[in-house]
Amino acid sequence: MKTKKVAIVGASGYSGEELVKLLLSHPHAELVAVTSRQNAGQTLAQVFPKFASHPKSKGLRFVDPNAELLAKQADVVFLALPHGVAAEYAVPLMAAGCVVIDLSADFRLKSADRYKEFYGHDHPAPELLKKSVYGLPEIYRDEIKSSLLIASPGCYPTSILLPTIPLLSAGLVKSQGIIADSLSGVTGAGRKAETDYLFCECNESVRPYGVPKHRHLSEIEEQLSLAAGAPVVIQFTPHLIPVNRGILSTLYLEPAKPFTSAEAMAALAEKISQCYAAAYAHEPFVRLLEGKSLPDTKNVVGTNVCEIAWRLDARTGRLIVMSAEDNLVKGASGQAVQSLNLLSGWPETDGLV
Amino acid sequence: MKTKKVAIVGASGYSGEELVKLLLSHPHAELVAVTSRQNAGQTLAQVFPKFASHPKSKGLRFVDPNAELLAKQADVVFLALPHGVAAEYAVPLMAAGCVVIDLSADFRLKSADRYKEFYGHDHPAPELLKKSVYGLPEIYRDEIKSSLLIASPGCYPTSILLPTIPLLSAGLVKSQGIIADSLSGVTGAGRKAETDYLFCECNESVRPYGVPKHRHLSEIEEQLSLAAGAPVVIQFTPHLIPVNRGILSTLYLEPAKPFTSAEAMAALAEKISQCYAAAYAHEPFVRLLEGKSLPDTKNVVGTNVCEIAWRLDARTGRLIVMSAEDNLVKGASGQAVQSLNLLSGWPETDGLV
Amino acid sequence: MKTKKVAIVGASGYSGEELVKLLLSHPHAELVAVTSRQNAGQTLAQVFPKFASHPKSKGLRFVDPNAELLAKQADVVFLALPHGVAAEYAVPLMAAGCVVIDLSADFRLKSADRYKEFYGHDHPAPELLKKSVYGLPEIYRDEIKSSLLIASPGCYPTSILLPTIPLLSAGLVKSQGIIADSLSGVTGAGRKAETDYLFCECNESVRPYGVPKHRHLSEIEEQLSLAAGAPVVIQFTPHLIPVNRGILSTLYLEPAKPFTSAEAMAALAEKISQCYAAAYAHEPFVRLLEGKSLPDTKNVVGTNVCEIAWRLDARTGRLIVMSAEDNLVKGASGQAVQSLNLLSGWPETDGLV
Amino acid sequence: MKTKKVAIVGASGYSGEELVKLLLSHPHAELVAVTSRQNAGQTLAQVFPKFASHPKSKGLRFVDPNAELLAKQADVVFLALPHGVAAEYAVPLMAAGCVVIDLSADFRLKSADRYKEFYGHDHPAPELLKKSVYGLPEIYRDEIKSSLLIASPGCYPTSILLPTIPLLSAGLVKSQGIIADSLSGVTGAGRKAETDYLFCECNESVRPYGVPKHRHLSEIEEQLSLAAGAPVVIQFTPHLIPVNRGILSTLYLEPAKPFTSAEAMAALAEKISQCYAAAYAHEPFVRLLEGKSLPDTKNVVGTNVCEIAWRLDARTGRLIVMSAEDNLVKGASGQAVQSLNLLSGWPETDGLV
Repeated sequence: MKTKKVAIVGASGYSGEELVKLLLSHPHAELVAVTSRQNAGQTLAQVFPKFASHPKSKGLRFVDPNAELLAKQADVVFLALPHGVAAEYAVPLMAAGCVVIDLSADFRLKSADRYKEFYGHDHPAPELLKKSVYGLPEIYRDEIKSSLLIASPGCYPTSILLPTIPLLSAGLVKSQGIIADSLSGVTGAGRKAETDYLFCECNESVRPYGVPKHRHLSEIEEQLSLAAGAPVVIQFTPHLIPVNRGILSTLYLEPAKPFTSAEAMAALAEKISQCYAAAYAHEPFVRLLEGKSLPDTKNVVGTNVCEIAWRLDARTGRLIVMSAEDNLVKGASGQAVQSLNLLSGWPETDGLV
Repeated sequence: MKTKKVAIVGASGYSGEELVKLLLSHPHAELVAVTSRQNAGQTLAQVFPKFASHPKSKGLRFVDPNAELLAKQADVVFLALPHGVAAEYAVPLMAAGCVVIDLSADFRLKSADRYKEFYGHDHPAPELLKKSVYGLPEIYRDEIKSSLLIASPGCYPTSILLPTIPLLSAGLVKSQGIIADSLSGVTGAGRKAETDYLFCECNESVRPYGVPKHRHLSEIEEQLSLAAGAPVVIQFTPHLIPVNRGILSTLYLEPAKPFTSAEAMAALAEKISQCYAAAYAHEPFVRLLEGKSLPDTKNVVGTNVCEIAWRLDARTGRLIVMSAEDNLVKGASGQAVQSLNLLSGWPETDGLV
Repeated sequence: MKTKKVAIVGASGYSGEELVKLLLSHPHAELVAVTSRQNAGQTLAQVFPKFASHPKSKGLRFVDPNAELLAKQADVVFLALPHGVAAEYAVPLMAAGCVVIDLSADFRLKSADRYKEFYGHDHPAPELLKKSVYGLPEIYRDEIKSSLLIASPGCYPTSILLPTIPLLSAGLVKSQGIIADSLSGVTGAGRKAETDYLFCECNESVRPYGVPKHRHLSEIEEQLSLAAGAPVVIQFTPHLIPVNRGILSTLYLEPAKPFTSAEAMAALAEKISQCYAAAYAHEPFVRLLEGKSLPDTKNVVGTNVCEIAWRLDARTGRLIVMSAEDNLVKGASGQAVQSLNLLSGWPETDGLV
Repeated sequence: MKTKKVAIVGASGYSGEELVKLLLSHPHAELVAVTSRQNAGQTLAQVFPKFASHPKSKGLRFVDPNAELLAKQADVVFLALPHGVAAEYAVPLMAAGCVVIDLSADFRLKSADRYKEFYGHDHPAPELLKKSVYGLPEIYRDEIKSSLLIASPGCYPTSILLPTIPLLSAGLVKSQGIIADSLSGVTGAGRKAETDYLFCECNESVRPYGVPKHRHLSEIEEQLSLAAGAPVVIQFTPHLIPVNRGILSTLYLEPAKPFTSAEAMAALAEKISQCYAAAYAHEPFVRLLEGKSLPDTKNVVGTNVCEIAWRLDARTGRLIVMSAEDNLVKGASGQAVQSLNLLSGWPETDGLV
């Protein structure tokens, strides 16, 4: 199988580090460059001792990011940068013929206005918004295969969109009144030296944040609106919990047709079951839980899998859907590699199981 | 001030242990007996080395629970026992003239049928249900003062009822459609040697459980219904998170009158603010957060305080209320001591700050 | 009992915060001022929401540190500052007649040269070194009572000195070859926004640091030398472990007279037992463990107690002593309050149990 | 490359689970059977949901252990059983022609008497002790290649032997007076439903245990004695720390020839450096840290690598060596797979990077 040369811009953060790990072990990708302003000049092994023993890590040394140079070295460039900064690299890299897989929020929205509303500044490259594909393979597999600019989804959005889109698309749940209550590990905050994320401030602590208008709402609602065929506005409350990795989302949905009998409830359950099976039974990275099982982040951490379980509540008439994923893998770097596999024509699971 | 002799039945679990701690340091209570079948014969210091240095712990030794003997020794007996078992002790203790403060679920409901529905067996002492008072001091202060049987509330219910009751009572929110999404530390599961609660099964893990019909719904809904003056059915999803102590509840409520303008929203915000101030501004154990602050369990752990913050969401029209408490203190033993203070005529905060 | 007015310079770090907690609840101390450059202007409750519900916290607002003003307000001033900085405040405060209890390393050593060797800069106020008393109450109780400048011991030193000094003083162990292997919670690193202490860098991680010459060796060896009556050089290896609080030290000592029979070993054990009992049986804040018990930080966290257990090893001839303390209480702020009690003529345990 | 059929007896504990993970992903091993008395009848995916998405997990279902059946199915059988029990399976499996890789302590010692001293019962199959090879590939690579019974080392022993054996073999350190102070994650205690290992008993806790005579001393001392060519008795203190995985060992060694000058110290440092380089520079699973780096369990967790760093202390004359490993990988299952690779003629790193 043809190999590809890949580079990572911004490889010293948590998702950058996870990308390094995945790409070093990928059977067809050759990691040729890693950049980091603060670590430029150091070897990969100096910054991340755990990679020192990996045979493919030997020659790798962090360099300052330089789009021109990167474009000469790599076929595909991953951007693991803050929003706003990613676009600065995407433009010249694409101009030079590289495929770009962006892990930031810069190309996830179709509307530059919505970007400005949620991110607080003008979009740095609005002309690219129509070229980008939202890199959620279970929904946009075909588009990803032929795209030159992949906007890899956010961690919270992945955990919310995967369980919700099939139900909305099938018309099984109302598009209004959706609530997503999410819990995230601390890597989600990035490797930032801020007091709020010190060990002693997060350990033995649980707290909501970003209430009620978190930035990820922009892409969640855009994607849900596409699925529903109508504008969707949801409630979303993120919480920080003391684990390194993992997102658990609990979703509260209302059946499109309220059930009023045990029979109707059973019939709806059957439809939901079939809807999910049709969407995901053959997906390698979505696990539909059965029986009494409920999602648990410890069962997905370190994997590219999103677990989903659901319950109908006879007392309230609601549908509760719960999902779990590793925010750095299916919620970031693993999903980005999944897109790499798709656009490279490699088996979708290569390097991910 | 007159002192009282107190005893704890079931003092070897987490809430029992916390009760021991609080009562050893209480200025007017004298802890005269602690029972535990499994630890009978051992000194308090042998079972809990941390109490060994407390001057008042010296003579205390665990004994087998015996209602007759306890009734002779103590004025007030705390029951920190599993539901179903607590009632077995409450009956003879009350008959012998003791005041009983029960931390189990046995006397929290007014309806024996509802008890059976949620707890799976006939109520063991239905005749006592009309004598018991639900021991939430902020709501039932006067009743507690003159009661002989206090049913101390559950941990989840406390975190949900305190933020919700004033709003329902004031008619500011709809009584239907309420959702409570709660996160609890692992002491909530008790000191049970079960694989599910081993360190390695809980650490680096987050998971929902008891979906969709957790037992605590019974008392939550009974109390909310009383506040609303109409039957209330809510959605409640508990999650287990890797901290020792602490409950964080996020509540999704709908304003009774939807707001349709910024002015209406501001007016509603003012009403909510006044409602909470009227209910809790002078309460020593409820903290209304101001400004940008949101609840964080680390700010309440080890205290008898419940923190509350709220936000109106202009996009969804919903009211989001968040609360934090220590499940073993305000959610269990601290609240029980608060009731002890009330019924003993002592200052309500004695032994609790 | 006569009250005293106390102030804390540097009250926004972890030991400063713990001091605030202890002093707010102290029966005879009145906390009149808290300083913090970064939080000046904010109320205590804004910076530490958990103190908001404490009745005595109401009027307190962080101010910029100003020795002249503090001297007018307070009888006793606690310095919870970095080494080098503490001395800058101690000099004018003492000149103005305040008693100073310093939690930094600035006045712990008797030798300015040794200070320079370990702290890398000239001592800022060498003339005060002979006035200061090493604030370890179990060893220097009488000196503390009449001192105007208390150098409160470091966290690691407390956990090592308490178990070792009685043995050395009694000549039961050799003064050479001592090894102290210590494990500390992350509050020991202070509330510093550094990447190394982020949640995700400390959680699921254990690591040694400062090997082989940690600064705390200077005071440990000075005190052990005084106890032994001869120069003592020890091996000390600190490790960072993922807990908020707690230090566990394991000490490897050699009996002064090697035992060569079971009888000799039993005789030595008896002597050690008597030595510790003589030193600590009546100490309120040292707990000598009995039977099979070994120290566990969870049994001392939140208390001013240091737990000690020991074992003779028939196979190696060594004495292993293990101690546990809360680094922020007995290892810092609790011990400082213990000194406050002593020099104020209050019962030594007031405000500490 | 020729594949082999492998089975795991006792696959429901932590090391069994890790073996399943490694063997499912191994390029040449085919996992044909997993046994567990308690889970017999359940699919692998039911017991461990995280394996459900692995393509090779499909047909696997836990069965009751039956040596006769296993011998027909598998070429190599891993025993992840308690000591004493493992031997019961090893005997019939070997008789039936299987290669056995035992993760228990049953075949690690050459002396049945020593086994009885440390494990408290007669050795169940003493005749096999001379056939077994101690499965530490860095030391016994050639013997492992041709062995039919591999006694895979314990987790603590691996972390102590790898750093110590080369120094003892080279005569650089004294064989007497060695101290090993070790810290282990809680998976080391196994998946046992005991109160001591509950989340709330381990979280925010650090404690020594098994002082002074832990069972692992038997194999550590046997191997060190072989390296030193003389009987070695060491001091070993294990501690339990609140992480899932990882062992950090700090070793205190005395140079064979004490150094008395900076030059002598530098010369010794050079010899130690060369000794370690000769032993491990080409070992894929030993990482010699350079510069200021010290071991950190987070850099080895999830890998088969043991990190080693060392320091000479000019003040005490001692050599401090520190090592870190994942107790479940290099300390158990990874090392066992490393042996499988060796005895199968496969590249030693297959399935392990």
